[in-house]
Amino acid sequence: MGALREVLSEARRLVEPGPEERARVGSAASRLLEACGERFRRVGEVVDVSLEGSVAKDTWIRGRPEVDVFVHLRPEVPEARLEELVITGGREVLEGLGGRSWLRYASHPYIEGELDGVRVNIVGCFSVPEGAWKSAVDRTPYHTRHIKSVLGSELRTEVRLLKGFLIGVGVYGAEIRVEGFSGYLSELLTASYGGFEQLIRAASGWRPPVTIDMSGRHAREAMIQMFPNSGLVVIDPVDPGRNVASAVSLTSLSEFILASKLFLRRPSLEYFKPSPVTKRAGDQRQLLGLFFRLHENLVPDILWGELKRTMRGVARRLESEGFRVYRAAASQSGGGALILLELDRLELPRYELRRGPPVWMEKALDFVDKALARETTGAGPWVDGERLYALVRRDTTRAKELVEKWFRGRQVAVSRHLASDRASLEVLTPEEGLLEKLESDLSLAVFKDRFLAGLSAAIRLGEPDD
Amino acid sequence: MGALREVLSEARRLVEPGPEERARVGSAASRLLEACGERFRRVGEVVDVSLEGSVAKDTWIRGRPEVDVFVHLRPEVPEARLEELVITGGREVLEGLGGRSWLRYASHPYIEGELDGVRVNIVGCFSVPEGAWKSAVDRTPYHTRHIKSVLGSELRTEVRLLKGFLIGVGVYGAEIRVEGFSGYLSELLTASYGGFEQLIRAASGWRPPVTIDMSGRHAREAMIQMFPNSGLVVIDPVDPGRNVASAVSLTSLSEFILASKLFLRRPSLEYFKPSPVTKRAGDQRQLLGLFFRLHENLVPDILWGELKRTMRGVARRLESEGFRVYRAAASQSGGGALILLELDRLELPRYELRRGPPVWMEKALDFVDKALARETTGAGPWVDGERLYALVRRDTTRAKELVEKWFRGRQVAVSRHLASDRASLEVLTPEEGLLEKLESDLSLAVFKDRFLAGLSAAIRLGEPDD
Repeated sequence: MGALREVLSEARRLVEPGPEERARVGSAASRLLEACGERFRRVGEVVDVSLEGSVAKDTWIRGRPEVDVFVHLRPEVPEARLEELVITGGREVLEGLGGRSWLRYASHPYIEGELDGVRVNIVGCFSVPEGAWKSAVDRTPYHTRHIKSVLGSELRTEVRLLKGFLIGVGVYGAEIRVEGFSGYLSELLTASYGGFEQLIRAASGWRPPVTIDMSGRHAREAMIQMFPNSGLVVIDPVDPGRNVASAVSLTSLSEFILASKLFLRRPSLEYFKPSPVTKRAGDQRQLLGLFFRLHENLVPDILWGELKRTMRGVARRLESEGFRVYRAAASQSGGGALILLELDRLELPRYELRRGPPVWMEKALDFVDKALARETTGAGPWVDGERLYALVRRDTTRAKELVEKWFRGRQVAVSRHLASDRASLEVLTPEEGLLEKLESDLSLAVFKDRFLAGLSAAIRLGEPDD
Repeated sequence: MGALREVLSEARRLVEPGPEERARVGSAASRLLEACGERFRRVGEVVDVSLEGSVAKDTWIRGRPEVDVFVHLRPEVPEARLEELVITGGREVLEGLGGRSWLRYASHPYIEGELDGVRVNIVGCFSVPEGAWKSAVDRTPYHTRHIKSVLGSELRTEVRLLKGFLIGVGVYGAEIRVEGFSGYLSELLTASYGGFEQLIRAASGWRPPVTIDMSGRHAREAMIQMFPNSGLVVIDPVDPGRNVASAVSLTSLSEFILASKLFLRRPSLEYFKPSPVTKRAGDQRQLLGLFFRLHENLVPDILWGELKRTMRGVARRLESEGFRVYRAAASQSGGGALILLELDRLELPRYELRRGPPVWMEKALDFVDKALARETTGAGPWVDGERLYALVRRDTTRAKELVEKWFRGRQVAVSRHLASDRASLEVLTPEEGLLEKLESDLSLAVFKDRFLAGLSAAIRLGEPDD
């Protein structure tokens, strides 16, 4: 117990921004808010300009401040006008302040930029009453208000602790790449349990589905029925029809549960640092790498959505063909993307078993006729139990060739942007230099090492084993 | 339809014994019956001596007569006395007639022999009223009487047709090697359907479980409940608590159903002849042969029971280890026995996937600890969905070595006589000369060719395809 308290107070020092950072961020935030106020308040459609996000809520983690300024427009303003106004105005403001800016897309376009070394966003939203949401970000000002009202200064530090832990465990962020815990979700969880330690003590005993409703108005069963595919349901205090944790995958939730158990058993500051790379041997590992060259600059969530969909499609097809897919992961580097799979083997048996119908079925004789007519029938048909079987010779047995064939023939669920220029797919196995190619790129080399180790980020190997 | 009638009348000529055979068998039967009468009627415990079996019922198939003489003893006679009496007396009788004799075992020992080129059996039974059975063969005289009462001369020919068809299709005989249709069952089925054609027309539409009760006293559901593991239930008219078809495996029943369908679609005399051997290529087939040397002369049903049990045990173990067992068959030749298996591959992947518990279970941390401590862990533990997984390196990957290891360590369900002298097991793959070894023995060579072809005996490839 002493160890836990000690680790937590050290961790608080790690995640809490220092006075210099607070001053720098505070000044950037006020300058941006003021400049935006001046630029946008003169526009007729604008109702308000406000500071949002982790800086507004004072919950950002040391070294990761993000200043969000929201421009609130009358709800009757057309979407296109909102976009145009925010993009043009946002750029002007940042230029005027001597910062940099660029265009980003989420549910709609917004301006991202940098000011005095601080990441800033200028986002347009509609000024609507609670529940009458017009765009996905209209809830944000309500979220900010809610969090400010429930988090005192001590709990704000606890939020930072949780975010640091989630980052260390690799499950911080609601983006598709991570499928983890958003900042707002971290704040709600901390508020709900009254602190980091209380939360992870609870989480170490969680069994999904986990349901949390701070209002106490929803019964557990009703929440599970409302969100049947969610391992974690946290009702949005600002919008009771919404699950704040809808982006959290079962895997990410489970990583968090496991990390909570492991951390409580042996508390360590390591959990608040990036997990070290463990090296494990790659020989005799049956790896298959799919390299895609991307010819378009995709919004990360779209790229990652497609990568993961394609990864699942390829894995499913390989499984149905007779391979076992032990693991699959995706990565991105420069203008390329990569799906890495580990299989039980890279080559299928030459003969596969075809299970026919029971002999008493009408179509039993069809199976016999077809098997006898087929040139690739290696044995059978024979009868075992009530069924017919035959052994059929496969044309293609190598996973690499099969995947290439499926992509050529569009016989696998591949997402649009990855399939558009199909010639840009390269499939490699260790025999064709897969590992060497991964090692030639620094970020892919780290990805490869992590993949080979296959170690949950929740597991800290660095600790002394006592 | 014309083709069917024509084939059937030709087939009747094939299966019907000619006058010379009838005369020879008739004379052998009367000589044996008379001699047994003289030898046994003077013994106080003997009540009767009778002619049984297919010759008594006039249902033997051409070239396959079997003369069974039963010696009926008072039920109070001890089993040991019955055995001693029949063995000593039976030998004397056959020697006196100039025939040959040897000892055989079924449920109890009996004398088998040869007289004038005819196979004969001298069997002891207890003379008991219906239902008060003391030994397994006590029902036989009642069976003979029943069949004689229901089969006229035309139906006796139909029985011969059915037996010929069952032999051709490889499912004649209730012994464990065949798991097929006994002579008595063939007679009951023919009587029940009123002829061969009527029976196979019905059988071509059978869907197991099939239930037949000539008395009409048992409801289908009751019969299925009484014999839940039987694909075919035929109530014994002589003993309503007994299923005459209990020896018929689902595979044999299904072969018969399939053969009925195929024969009706394209009638051919081929079905009444042994199935020809089809040759198919053995290259790239993943075969594993287990050769046992036998140091004891085993009763066939015991040997075959052990062989099949061992075959299933080895197949199950291979499957649980990660192989797919496509097919398995056993054979016997000289003083040896053989189990032949066809697998998807002869070598397992070096790494196997270990599925751990869900992270929310108490024992999740144990799985993590053990996986990290194990030297053979190649990757993991990682989290996927709610579960933990790890990749573990296998020590032994070759099927041959695994089987040898299991036999050495008795880690597989092996039957007593096959395991007794474990050093006599030899495991071969094609690499170690399996096919050559099989070819060096004529009967094993045929077995090998049949195994490689893997063709149901119900399928006649020889026919013209029109």
